[in-house]
Amino acid sequence: MKRFIILGSTGSIGKSSLDVIAANPKQFRVVGLAAGRSGESMYEQIAHFRPEAVSLRDRQIACEVRNRVGGRTRVYEDFQGMIEMIKTLEADTVINGLVGSVGMIPTLAALESGKDVLLANKETMVMAGELVMDTVKRYGKRIVPIDSEMSAIYQCLKGERRNEVKRLILTASGGPFIDLNREQLAGVTVERALNHPTWSMGTKNTIDSATLMNKGLEVIEASRLFGIPGDRIDVIIHRSSLVHSFVEFIDGSILSQMSRPDMRLAIQYAMTDPERLPSPYGGLDFSRPFSMAFEPPDRERFPCLKLAYGALARGGTAPAVMNGANERAVEAFVEGHIAFMDIPLTIQKVMDEHEFIETPSVDELITADLNAKRRMDEIMKSKKSA
Amino acid sequence: MKRFIILGSTGSIGKSSLDVIAANPKQFRVVGLAAGRSGESMYEQIAHFRPEAVSLRDRQIACEVRNRVGGRTRVYEDFQGMIEMIKTLEADTVINGLVGSVGMIPTLAALESGKDVLLANKETMVMAGELVMDTVKRYGKRIVPIDSEMSAIYQCLKGERRNEVKRLILTASGGPFIDLNREQLAGVTVERALNHPTWSMGTKNTIDSATLMNKGLEVIEASRLFGIPGDRIDVIIHRSSLVHSFVEFIDGSILSQMSRPDMRLAIQYAMTDPERLPSPYGGLDFSRPFSMAFEPPDRERFPCLKLAYGALARGGTAPAVMNGANERAVEAFVEGHIAFMDIPLTIQKVMDEHEFIETPSVDELITADLNAKRRMDEIMKSKKSA
Repeated sequence: MKRFIILGSTGSIGKSSLDVIAANPKQFRVVGLAAGRSGESMYEQIAHFRPEAVSLRDRQIACEVRNRVGGRTRVYEDFQGMIEMIKTLEADTVINGLVGSVGMIPTLAALESGKDVLLANKETMVMAGELVMDTVKRYGKRIVPIDSEMSAIYQCLKGERRNEVKRLILTASGGPFIDLNREQLAGVTVERALNHPTWSMGTKNTIDSATLMNKGLEVIEASRLFGIPGDRIDVIIHRSSLVHSFVEFIDGSILSQMSRPDMRLAIQYAMTDPERLPSPYGGLDFSRPFSMAFEPPDRERFPCLKLAYGALARGGTAPAVMNGANERAVEAFVEGHIAFMDIPLTIQKVMDEHEFIETPSVDELITADLNAKRRMDEIMKSKKSA
Repeated sequence: MKRFIILGSTGSIGKSSLDVIAANPKQFRVVGLAAGRSGESMYEQIAHFRPEAVSLRDRQIACEVRNRVGGRTRVYEDFQGMIEMIKTLEADTVINGLVGSVGMIPTLAALESGKDVLLANKETMVMAGELVMDTVKRYGKRIVPIDSEMSAIYQCLKGERRNEVKRLILTASGGPFIDLNREQLAGVTVERALNHPTWSMGTKNTIDSATLMNKGLEVIEASRLFGIPGDRIDVIIHRSSLVHSFVEFIDGSILSQMSRPDMRLAIQYAMTDPERLPSPYGGLDFSRPFSMAFEPPDRERFPCLKLAYGALARGGTAPAVMNGANERAVEAFVEGHIAFMDIPLTIQKVMDEHEFIETPSVDELITADLNAKRRMDEIMKSKKSA
C-alpha cells in the first residue's frame, strides 16, 4: 500500500489524483492533503478519504475546517504548516499539484524528507531544475512527471540510454488561438482563452496553453528532467492531443506515447511506475479510421515559446524570472488589466531588466521570482495610471 | 567487435545488412555469408568483406566461386554445407535473411551452436515459433526481429513487462491493392502486385504484402515472439508506413515506434541492441506539416489475413501448412498459373485437407510444409489440365 500526500488536492490535478486513488483502494492510501482556501471541498475530501492530516493555506479557513473535523484529522495552516505536514507525515510519495512558483519549496521539502515526488508543478523544474535534480540524487529519491507530455517522454525513455537520445519533440494542442493572426490575437478575450479545445485544466494552465507559454515551460522542464539541452528539444502542434510526445534516438528511430487526453492516465502511471495497472481512462479506438496531423508552431505569433527557449539557454535566474513575470501577467490578463499580446511583451521587459545571477541559491531564486512579480506589478500600475 | 554470419546475403535483407556492416567497420565484422545461386554477387561480397567462409546452395556455382577465390575463403555448398558453416564458424550472431520455410532449420542450428539470431525470416516463427522460443530459452541465446513491425514492438516493449501488454497493433502499408474491390482484385497482374508503394522488398514479400498474407504471417510471428495470443493482436492499415507498430498497455497507454521506411534501421537496431548507434537511415522531418492516417483492414477482401488468424488459433501444424501452401501459391501467381484471388482460395483448400498434428516435432513440421507444397502442386497441375 503506497501512502500519498497530495498538494493542491482541491485543484484539477488533485481531484484527478484522488479519482485514481479512489479507484484503487487496495494499492493507494491518502495520508495528507493540502489546499489553499477551498474549505468546503477540503471538508468533503477529509470525509471521503480520512487522511491523517490536512493543510490549508488560509488561516481562517483552516480554523473553520479544524472546528468541523474535530480531533480526527490534524489541520495545519499557512505555507509553513504545509511544509511541516510534508516533513512530518509518514508517506512514500508527495503528489505536487500546486500551481505556480509556490510549488518549488514543497518539492525540495518532500525529497529532503525521503519522499518520492510525482510532479505536476512544472514551475518547480523551471525555477530550480538543476537544484531539484541534485536533491533527487543526493537523497536517492525519484521524481516522476505527471504532465502528459513529460510522462510520454518518461515512458519512451524506459529501458533506453539517455546518451542515445537525439531529440525530444513535445506535442502541443496549440490552444484556442493557434489559427489567429497577430491582429486577431491582439483582441482575444479572457473567455475565449479559457476555452481549451482538448484538455480540461485549471485557469493558469489554460491561459499558458493559449500563449504557448505552457509549452515553453515544458521545454525547460523537459530539459532539466531528462538532461537534454534546449537546442535538442522541439515543439510540434498536434491539435487532437493523442500523441503526447516523441523521442528521437541517434539511430533515427522515434518512439512516441499516445492515449486519450485524460490527466488521470499520466497520474496513475506515475503512481504505479515501474508497474502499470488497468485503468478505465485510456484506450483509443483502432476499429475506425482516424488520422493525426502535426505542424511546426509559429514562434513569431507566439513569442512566449521564444522567451522560454531564450531563458533556458541563458540559465541561472532567467527561467525563474520569466516564470514569475508570466504568473503575474496571466493574472493581469484574466483580471482584464492587459491584452493578450501584452503577456509576452511585459514578460520580455521584466526579463530584460532583471539582475542576472548565474548559479543562484534557493533563496536567490525565491527573490528573483518575487522581484519579477513586484516589477510586473509596477508595470501594471504605470499602465493603469497611463 | 561483433562477428556476423549472414544467410541470404545476396538478397534484399542480406544486402541491407552488409550496408550497415560496411558503415560501421569498427563495431561489426562479417565472418560468413550464405546465398543460393548468385555466384557473381557472392564473389563481389567476398572481395569486399573477406569473410572466413561462404556457402552457396547451388553446387555448380559453389564450385565456380571456389575456383575464383582460391584458398582465401572456404566455400561450403548445398543446404547441409550452410548448416555446417553456421555450426562451425566462430560468430556471435547469425542474420537470417532467407526467404521461406527453408529458414527454419538454420535458425535452430544457429541457436543450438550458441549464436544469437537476428531474424528477418518470419517463416521460422510461423512454422515453429514455439519450438524456436523453447530453443532460445534452453541455450540462453537471444532472438531479435529485423522486420520493421516486429522491431517496433520489440523497441516499445523495452523496459516494459509482458504481462502488462493489452494489445499489439501491427501497421500494414496495405500494399498496392488496398483500394480495389473484389472484381478488380480478381484481375490484377503480377507487374502491379510487384509494385509496392512504400517498401522496397523481395518478390515473395512484395506479393505477400499485396495479399496481406505478409501481415498475417507477422501476426503469427508476433504472437510467438512476444507471447501474446492472436485475439490480442490487431492489424491497422497505415499507407505511409511511418508508424511501424503500436503496443497498448493495460492502463490504456500506447507506445509506438516510427522512422523512415528503410529496412537498414531495424537491421542496425537488431545488430546494436541493447545499444543504439548513429545512423543515416532514419529521421523524420518535423519542420514541415505532416499527417498520418490509419484505417482497419477489410478481412473479406483480403482473406489471407483471416486464414492467418485461423491458423494461429488452431496452432500445431496449421501455420506451417498455411505458410508452405502460400509459398507455392505465390510462385504460381508470379509464374502466371493462377489469378490473384486464387492465392487465398487454394491455400484454404490445402489447409482444409491437411492431416493436423497438435504438437508437431521439427521433422513433422518439415513434412507438413513439404506435403502442403506437394498438394498445392497437384492443385496447380489439375488446374492446368482442366
